Amino acid sequence: MIKIVVDLMGADKPANELVSGAIDAINENSDLMVTLCAKKDIIMPVLETLSYNKDQVEIIDCSEEITNDDIPTKAFRKKPDSSLVKGLNICKNDPFAGGFVSCGSTGAVLVSSMFILGRIGEVRPCLSCLLLGQNGEFLISDCGANVDCKPEQIVEFAKMGVAYMKAKGIENPSVRLLSNGAEEKKGPDAIKEAHQLLKNSGLNFLGNVEGKDVLQSTCDVICSDGFAGNTVIKTIEGTAKALFMDMIKASKEAKDDKEAKVLMNTVKNLMAKYDYNTLGGANLLGVKKPVIKGHGAGEAKTFYNMIKEAYVLAKNDMIGIMENLLS
Amino acid sequence: MIKIVVDLMGADKPANELVSGAIDAINENSDLMVTLCAKKDIIMPVLETLSYNKDQVEIIDCSEEITNDDIPTKAFRKKPDSSLVKGLNICKNDPFAGGFVSCGSTGAVLVSSMFILGRIGEVRPCLSCLLLGQNGEFLISDCGANVDCKPEQIVEFAKMGVAYMKAKGIENPSVRLLSNGAEEKKGPDAIKEAHQLLKNSGLNFLGNVEGKDVLQSTCDVICSDGFAGNTVIKTIEGTAKALFMDMIKASKEAKDDKEAKVLMNTVKNLMAKYDYNTLGGANLLGVKKPVIKGHGAGEAKTFYNMIKEAYVLAKNDMIGIMENLLS
Repeated sequence: MIKIVVDLMGADKPANELVSGAIDAINENSDLMVTLCAKKDIIMPVLETLSYNKDQVEIIDCSEEITNDDIPTKAFRKKPDSSLVKGLNICKNDPFAGGFVSCGSTGAVLVSSMFILGRIGEVRPCLSCLLLGQNGEFLISDCGANVDCKPEQIVEFAKMGVAYMKAKGIENPSVRLLSNGAEEKKGPDAIKEAHQLLKNSGLNFLGNVEGKDVLQSTCDVICSDGFAGNTVIKTIEGTAKALFMDMIKASKEAKDDKEAKVLMNTVKNLMAKYDYNTLGGANLLGVKKPVIKGHGAGEAKTFYNMIKEAYVLAKNDMIGIMENLLS
Repeated sequence: MIKIVVDLMGADKPANELVSGAIDAINENSDLMVTLCAKKDIIMPVLETLSYNKDQVEIIDCSEEITNDDIPTKAFRKKPDSSLVKGLNICKNDPFAGGFVSCGSTGAVLVSSMFILGRIGEVRPCLSCLLLGQNGEFLISDCGANVDCKPEQIVEFAKMGVAYMKAKGIENPSVRLLSNGAEEKKGPDAIKEAHQLLKNSGLNFLGNVEGKDVLQSTCDVICSDGFAGNTVIKTIEGTAKALFMDMIKASKEAKDDKEAKVLMNTVKNLMAKYDYNTLGGANLLGVKKPVIKGHGAGEAKTFYNMIKEAYVLAKNDMIGIMENLLS
């Protein structure tokens, strides 16, 4: 039995609109248990309408909520009865707890996870995003937790990303380094040094990747400093949005209804493909339990996906693999 | 009369396939003259088939070609009879020469321009790309000439970008700084310092912009360190390509011919909108004359656009505006 702790508060949507995602996840897997952290009054009316095995659900009543208005570095001390803080404490202390998921404030989730769960050794935790490219899924690591990075840290981001992909079932994950050219002499000094370290790291390192090849890439992990990684994922999001808007405009200007419909259907399919809600969420790697942070605009389906992912990472001992790679 | 020096060699396509772009440009403007640098034998047969005013064309026979295989820092000394080196020397010494355009090796164009034309003061020249966003054209500066940047340099990239946009007719160009968040405290140390310097620069500074808002942005100039700027333009290119491939796939899987045609037409229109060949090219800002470097895969139309742009920059005294802003 693996228990996943679910922070149902702090997201854009209220907990009662999100909780069904957790129930869908346990209904698919008898080996999975969820610890739901939220105001009990809010989720109970919905839970009573759903059918599920009561032994797989634990409810933790939380009177406080951490929002984007709270200062991340202070929130976890100021709001001890919040779903985020109570949930992380259970995740830390319960021997069955395998991971934690939340759609709350990114800063608060990051800081609270580091303080409450603790880091693996001296590592600087990173945020990693799983994206869908033309050749399948790949991870970008770091996506914004660390904006001024030393070369050694970038290698650690790669190792943590590799541990994650191994836990997802990839035997010998391949790694590329984000730079401004394919040649090893390209890039800022820190990137050029990271390239040399990666060559001698024992990882399955395939060299640099440029922004234009990220979505066409054939590797499993792209490591980068958090500033460039953040720039990549946000530019992908913005470019896709710009093209979707162009297509919607083309659909509105179509000659007839049939043409308009064809274009709108294609836009919808592509939006689903590049939708962060259908993918899992960002992983905070480097803390002592798996932590997944979903988009603030996450829906019930987002929680369903995050819980399933956290379950897989716990079951396949991502943390053990990571400790080995980092030691 | 303004003379634009045209390096017709070093591109993927041979000079005879490119030269008509220069002729189209002079045929539209009696005040424009072009100095065509190429092997004379190669371009003459094509020129003889075109109709134009001979007084507007000067031909410089060049026996050597600088390619991507030449080392940029050595090429301009090793190949003095190349179209790049001869052209830049004319651009420097001819009082009527208003600018230089090339689709040759980026590194060689950059290094040779800096050495032959010289820099404005002590400035570090940058590469600036004009992109088409949802709200019109905007410039990203630097796009990759400088990958390790000091905050003061990023402010200079902004000033050079502003000079360019002023020469293009924008009265008081607005500026944003690329970062990983809208708040002024976001970003690596160099970016946070650049933010403070920009606030006190006298420029029309509107704050930070994130990757996701670049194409939706309403400003005229986005300044950034060259590594992040390069990452943005290449990620836009790669994301657009990935979506075009998805749309082409959808078109192939369409139910009938009509649906397939609607999708393919939309892809073609969008590809034209985001095609670097229809836009001018990258500007090397900070040297003593306007220098435009087009895509290696540039076509005759690319040269036509670059020459028209260089003409405008010369006519409106971009260099004078830039010297004022930088002093």
